[in-house]
Amino acid sequence: MKGFSHLDKKGKAKMVDVSEKPATLREAIARGSVYMKPQTLKLIKEMGISKGDVLGVAKVAGIMAAKKTSELIPMCHPLNITSVHIGFTLDRKKNKVDIEARIRVIGQTGVEMEALTAVSVAALTLYDMCKAVDKEMTISEVMLVEKRGGRSGVFKRS
Amino acid sequence: MKGFSHLDKKGKAKMVDVSEKPATLREAIARGSVYMKPQTLKLIKEMGISKGDVLGVAKVAGIMAAKKTSELIPMCHPLNITSVHIGFTLDRKKNKVDIEARIRVIGQTGVEMEALTAVSVAALTLYDMCKAVDKEMTISEVMLVEKRGGRSGVFKRS
Amino acid sequence: MKGFSHLDKKGKAKMVDVSEKPATLREAIARGSVYMKPQTLKLIKEMGISKGDVLGVAKVAGIMAAKKTSELIPMCHPLNITSVHIGFTLDRKKNKVDIEARIRVIGQTGVEMEALTAVSVAALTLYDMCKAVDKEMTISEVMLVEKRGGRSGVFKRS
Amino acid sequence: MKGFSHLDKKGKAKMVDVSEKPATLREAIARGSVYMKPQTLKLIKEMGISKGDVLGVAKVAGIMAAKKTSELIPMCHPLNITSVHIGFTLDRKKNKVDIEARIRVIGQTGVEMEALTAVSVAALTLYDMCKAVDKEMTISEVMLVEKRGGRSGVFKRS
Amino acid sequence: MKGFSHLDKKGKAKMVDVSEKPATLREAIARGSVYMKPQTLKLIKEMGISKGDVLGVAKVAGIMAAKKTSELIPMCHPLNITSVHIGFTLDRKKNKVDIEARIRVIGQTGVEMEALTAVSVAALTLYDMCKAVDKEMTISEVMLVEKRGGRSGVFKRS
Amino acid sequence: MKGFSHLDKKGKAKMVDVSEKPATLREAIARGSVYMKPQTLKLIKEMGISKGDVLGVAKVAGIMAAKKTSELIPMCHPLNITSVHIGFTLDRKKNKVDIEARIRVIGQTGVEMEALTAVSVAALTLYDMCKAVDKEMTISEVMLVEKRGGRSGVFKRS
Repeated sequence: MKGFSHLDKKGKAKMVDVSEKPATLREAIARGSVYMKPQTLKLIKEMGISKGDVLGVAKVAGIMAAKKTSELIPMCHPLNITSVHIGFTLDRKKNKVDIEARIRVIGQTGVEMEALTAVSVAALTLYDMCKAVDKEMTISEVMLVEKRGGRSGVFKRS
Repeated sequence: MKGFSHLDKKGKAKMVDVSEKPATLREAIARGSVYMKPQTLKLIKEMGISKGDVLGVAKVAGIMAAKKTSELIPMCHPLNITSVHIGFTLDRKKNKVDIEARIRVIGQTGVEMEALTAVSVAALTLYDMCKAVDKEMTISEVMLVEKRGGRSGVFKRS
Repeated sequence: MKGFSHLDKKGKAKMVDVSEKPATLREAIARGSVYMKPQTLKLIKEMGISKGDVLGVAKVAGIMAAKKTSELIPMCHPLNITSVHIGFTLDRKKNKVDIEARIRVIGQTGVEMEALTAVSVAALTLYDMCKAVDKEMTISEVMLVEKRGGRSGVFKRS
Repeated sequence: MKGFSHLDKKGKAKMVDVSEKPATLREAIARGSVYMKPQTLKLIKEMGISKGDVLGVAKVAGIMAAKKTSELIPMCHPLNITSVHIGFTLDRKKNKVDIEARIRVIGQTGVEMEALTAVSVAALTLYDMCKAVDKEMTISEVMLVEKRGGRSGVFKRS
Repeated sequence: MKGFSHLDKKGKAKMVDVSEKPATLREAIARGSVYMKPQTLKLIKEMGISKGDVLGVAKVAGIMAAKKTSELIPMCHPLNITSVHIGFTLDRKKNKVDIEARIRVIGQTGVEMEALTAVSVAALTLYDMCKAVDKEMTISEVMLVEKRGGRSGVFKRS
Repeated sequence: MKGFSHLDKKGKAKMVDVSEKPATLREAIARGSVYMKPQTLKLIKEMGISKGDVLGVAKVAGIMAAKKTSELIPMCHPLNITSVHIGFTLDRKKNKVDIEARIRVIGQTGVEMEALTAVSVAALTLYDMCKAVDKEMTISEVMLVEKRGGRSGVFKRS
């Protein structure tokens, strides 16, 4: 199964052996969006002016989830991440909240999954906080946008 | 903050009090899709014929994540879910894998977040298993499609 | 070892058997205080006016910790708590933040430990958020103030 | 928000970036006390002579909690702690049990929160083990007493 | 796949749906043994006379692991266990420590896996505590010995 | 208590201080067997030809458990393991499935407990997947077979 690093020659799952790789600075940036009704976005924005609890709770959830990545994704290596940054942008035109997570580590493998997990759980928390007013929110375009460090060098999504 | 059940009158976060609600059968169905290169989908499909480990690992990850929902989503109530079903459909035309999770519980509150979390973590696991061949996979259209049980009755996404 | 319910006749630890107890509504309220420098309290208060993130993060941490109680306290029974409420009061005279947690459940045993754990972890998080400006903060007077439900009836700390 | 390292310029929560800090030996010592009725202390002491299970269980709980610190405290960095030592002293004059935790690590950031968490959870466990005979026990004076290693050098509480 | 309840008709893993089953009292008893050198057993026994920490720590570990069963075994339903009892017997003739765990719950499914997990983790902890003096200890005969409650009635291993 | 590294001079439990040990490559291999009825083994084998889900799920469970070792075994140090390999062998003559786990890490202490935990949880998962057809399966001969790295050098079970 050429290229599928988490599968051995017989197609069986394994955790890739990174024992021999050097511990270097690695960084990954992921993004995603939560689409919602205009009224839902307006409510989130109004709270942002006063107290900001919806986005505040989503941020804490995303940061804590980043630390749980290797418990959630079976073949992920445990890593002691050294930085998590999560930001939100409210897009009034497209009625969505954009989420961006940037994770850094000194480690033997990359933090793509940590960044994607942080975005996903922040998005799920946004859904949870707002679902009483809008059950049809949709989480979309969760993707890796940048990755650097390690042997494979810099990746930037085109 | 009318309608935001997880916020009190001052916009502060809280866990909704469901103590007085009866424990009834509740069910939720969520869906999502992982878009990828045609070649990536082809590889997953070929493995499905022989061993199916990529989808097999993603399914186990989704089931285990459903049980972790209240650890990930800050205001979620812990629930002893009684059933998790996760299914995958390979869509060769649109080059995506569709994921569906159905969760059931006898409980005092619904399992939307459990279903959405199961879909999200299954999707993240798919990404992790295939990222060596396709870093540009995208997780999209994660949404609640159906929910039944409890006072608010049946919800079906239009 | 009369009275120590978590010890058997030989003084060995055990988890008390609550299988035969009925599931009833139980509630517990705990309190605690974090003492700090006047300047630290002033900074927290100023943020409370604008964004409130220190207390906001501490509240989320306390709620999530309440759900983890049976993972932390060895002889605690797992319970699906149905309500968590955490409140903070800034005391300018005594230079402290008072924390109160109220937990409810329909269960076979009480939620004292959940309330005490929520207060403790909210207090620890306050410490963590402010430790760069004040390493000498002290967590004190963490105690159960009220408990109701179950065979032993109402307890109110005098 | 000068000095609050876990808040960015807008007062929003973040996990401090320690990626560039060197991994060095760091140590922290925290203390706390559990106040109780004379009779409760006497019972604990008597068990200490024979079997010691109350303090034994509290010690295991404290050690395991130290390892869970970054799961409990939202902005805490995960660290692979290399040593945990927890000790108890019975104070018959003041009717309290004093708890001390000392944690060591080779890491990029300090272990104050790990030491404070170990003390807090050991104290909560003492409460849990003894609550059937004494619901009015109080956890107080949980504080950092010493910290060494890292750029900021030695801290000793005066 | 007749009989394999955790597999669907195509041999794919699933969590069995127990939503319709009544919550009744269920109990399971499991056993296992740790074989060791005579000298290792002697050391454990001598400690048992004075402080008993090896068995004490193993017991706490087993109780806490019982509560984690559904996090470890992918298809296991989460359950709020209401009683855990773990006992040890030192067998000087066969140079082994026998471990027995008895778990009870009011639930919709049985607690065999909880009992087997408690025995296994208590055994692993015994190994960990003694491995500096005896790396060749062996964990054997971990088995379900009794199970009652639920539709399938009483099971006793012959 | 000479030789019991997890006990101090008074026989009290502690986590060994490994702060001063160098981080080196360490590896451990553990094995164990699940004995079952011939018919149960036959069913597992038949599935292995088509879909392999029983062994597939057990493998994922074992890998994820290896990452949880320090949460399960009280005195275990947390470690960022860099490789997990789990293999199964079906033994038709003795009606058992043999499980082998090999773990690697760059760390300050060994990974024996991680390897033994991976084997144990994979075995428990096998039991769970097959228990509807065979409640009398037995987990036996769980043992460390090899260990290398660190000051104590190579250990091979005779």
